[in-house]
Amino acid sequence: MSPSLSAFPLKPGSTIGILGGGQLGRMLAQAAARLGLHVHIYCPNPQAPAFEVASASTIAAFDDQQALQDFARSVDVVTFEFENIPLQAAGLVANIAPLYPNRQALEISQDRSVEKAFIEELGLNVADWWQVDTAKDLAKALAQCASPALLKTRRLGYDGKGQISLDQSHDPVQSFAQIGQQPSILEKMIRFEREISVILVQGAPDEVRCYDVPCNQHKNGILHMSSVPSGVADALEQQARDAAIKIAAALDYRGVLAVEFFVAGAPANPKLIINEFAPRVHNSGHWTLDACLCDQFENHIRAIAGWPLGPTTRHSNAQMSNLLGEQVLDWHTLASRPDVAVHLYGKTGSQAGRKLGHMTKISPISD
Amino acid sequence: MSPSLSAFPLKPGSTIGILGGGQLGRMLAQAAARLGLHVHIYCPNPQAPAFEVASASTIAAFDDQQALQDFARSVDVVTFEFENIPLQAAGLVANIAPLYPNRQALEISQDRSVEKAFIEELGLNVADWWQVDTAKDLAKALAQCASPALLKTRRLGYDGKGQISLDQSHDPVQSFAQIGQQPSILEKMIRFEREISVILVQGAPDEVRCYDVPCNQHKNGILHMSSVPSGVADALEQQARDAAIKIAAALDYRGVLAVEFFVAGAPANPKLIINEFAPRVHNSGHWTLDACLCDQFENHIRAIAGWPLGPTTRHSNAQMSNLLGEQVLDWHTLASRPDVAVHLYGKTGSQAGRKLGHMTKISPISD
Repeated sequence: MSPSLSAFPLKPGSTIGILGGGQLGRMLAQAAARLGLHVHIYCPNPQAPAFEVASASTIAAFDDQQALQDFARSVDVVTFEFENIPLQAAGLVANIAPLYPNRQALEISQDRSVEKAFIEELGLNVADWWQVDTAKDLAKALAQCASPALLKTRRLGYDGKGQISLDQSHDPVQSFAQIGQQPSILEKMIRFEREISVILVQGAPDEVRCYDVPCNQHKNGILHMSSVPSGVADALEQQARDAAIKIAAALDYRGVLAVEFFVAGAPANPKLIINEFAPRVHNSGHWTLDACLCDQFENHIRAIAGWPLGPTTRHSNAQMSNLLGEQVLDWHTLASRPDVAVHLYGKTGSQAGRKLGHMTKISPISD
Repeated sequence: MSPSLSAFPLKPGSTIGILGGGQLGRMLAQAAARLGLHVHIYCPNPQAPAFEVASASTIAAFDDQQALQDFARSVDVVTFEFENIPLQAAGLVANIAPLYPNRQALEISQDRSVEKAFIEELGLNVADWWQVDTAKDLAKALAQCASPALLKTRRLGYDGKGQISLDQSHDPVQSFAQIGQQPSILEKMIRFEREISVILVQGAPDEVRCYDVPCNQHKNGILHMSSVPSGVADALEQQARDAAIKIAAALDYRGVLAVEFFVAGAPANPKLIINEFAPRVHNSGHWTLDACLCDQFENHIRAIAGWPLGPTTRHSNAQMSNLLGEQVLDWHTLASRPDVAVHLYGKTGSQAGRKLGHMTKISPISD
């Protein structure tokens, strides 16, 4: 039985429950506090950076049924900051409190194979792909692909983890061993001109808004920079927004949804190919904190609390760069720049490649 | 002995101590968290809204010496969110941790008589005023003033509290009784065209910046609206900034300082008269949250942590309105407006006249 929604919209003073306590959870908690909402963070990691900006905390594993139930009973709505929350945990919580985005969005996004099939069924483009459950599947797929490709585990990959690039010269048995012989997919490598993303927010059914489309650059599989405006043609941006809206509608979605696209094909005749979607606030939307009156975090909170959506327009151009590992040691120089906002996540240690903060350079739209 | 400043600038991961836990403390705490700094709030009121966005809390009275000392030892720098912190508490803390703004700024701003004398000594204008320690003093002052006037207690007045308006027709004995026979001042009432304020931030000596000057409207002694641009002539704004910078320099100041001015005299020959200053972030600077890349709260934290100051330029025009008491019940309508950001402070209850939130309407500068 689904919990009642009669309390929506949630009044100021209500409590938002967030599964996960990383930087996304932290920025969601900060947005909720600005709206006079309380926040309860659930995370197994006692050092999680979201705890210190939240009014209530549960440090417990995602298989601790009692802790999950107590958490769900203490909040008015539950959301999550990453899509690898165990489904069982999400289901347990959703029996007690409304869960947004819903379990279906979570389930589909957790499995690359299911996700691609879902996108294709909507008539949208993905890269050619093959399901790989054995080394033999991989050999067959590599032969059919006949082009450089990516072998990706179906589950638990992010920021370039859980994937290797290969081509027909690679030994399928070795490559499949390298990825841990896990259920995987082989994906044809796309030669793309640019990567863009749509950050969409959907509230009540048919109430949907998109932020301006950023152009995204990656380094070593991790987002390096997002820029708005994207530089791609308006018509192509509109096509991307339409695709994202189609996905949100099919998922009966509530909250912020991020959809990543490759801009491929000949420059005169560009074609959008969907890389993946994330049922949550997204790194390529961090620029909204400094270039929009209402950022992606606040709009996610508004959507899941049943509030009217905030404006997704921007007042400035923006260029967001992640601060990874030791880059954060440069905080003093970055904080000296007149056109830059520095955001640090309060994480301890400076492990290489770890997302410890980001910075946004803004400039007038008229420039 | 003053504590050492060798640790400055404070690295991310350091702890900011804040005396007071109201909405100003809350917004300071949120700004500090965005910079990766931890926050410890000290406040006697267990319901204080700043507690829930801070990593550490002390609920104790301002005369609890042990609690104050423990608090000071646990932080790297101390600041305050209101100027009526008992001086003894500030002194106790300042012996253990650096206190910014300094004790002198606090001491002067706590006493209207001392404050006015200090401003006059700098060659800046204040309204004609008389010290009133007895009903006889008041009778004499009213006769000399020969004009409508305000009787204000020297200490602990804010938002129109601790003051009454009167003229020569009033009985001095009754009026002095009405204000509790406290040490007071009589201040000639200024016929002003507008009220403006300067929100200044000073970091290292000679590093000083001002936000654009807002025009402020009050209702019932409480700030109702602040608008930028102010509508007053550039030269007059510059004169106001110069006066504020002079005050900050004389106080050897560090942090955000707010100075309130009346624009009086003939429209063709306007004259600035200083109403008062506040050694802290200020309600008339709340618009900076939505119209500037770096708001007054972040710049206060940067200044007291020894960081480079952030830009004080604005990307938008802004109009900030306070949400008092029951006005906050209108949150759903306000949140529906496309050009408005709503900020709620997470306070319980909706007592008449209490500051429970604010809203900012922004518009492009080019409009």
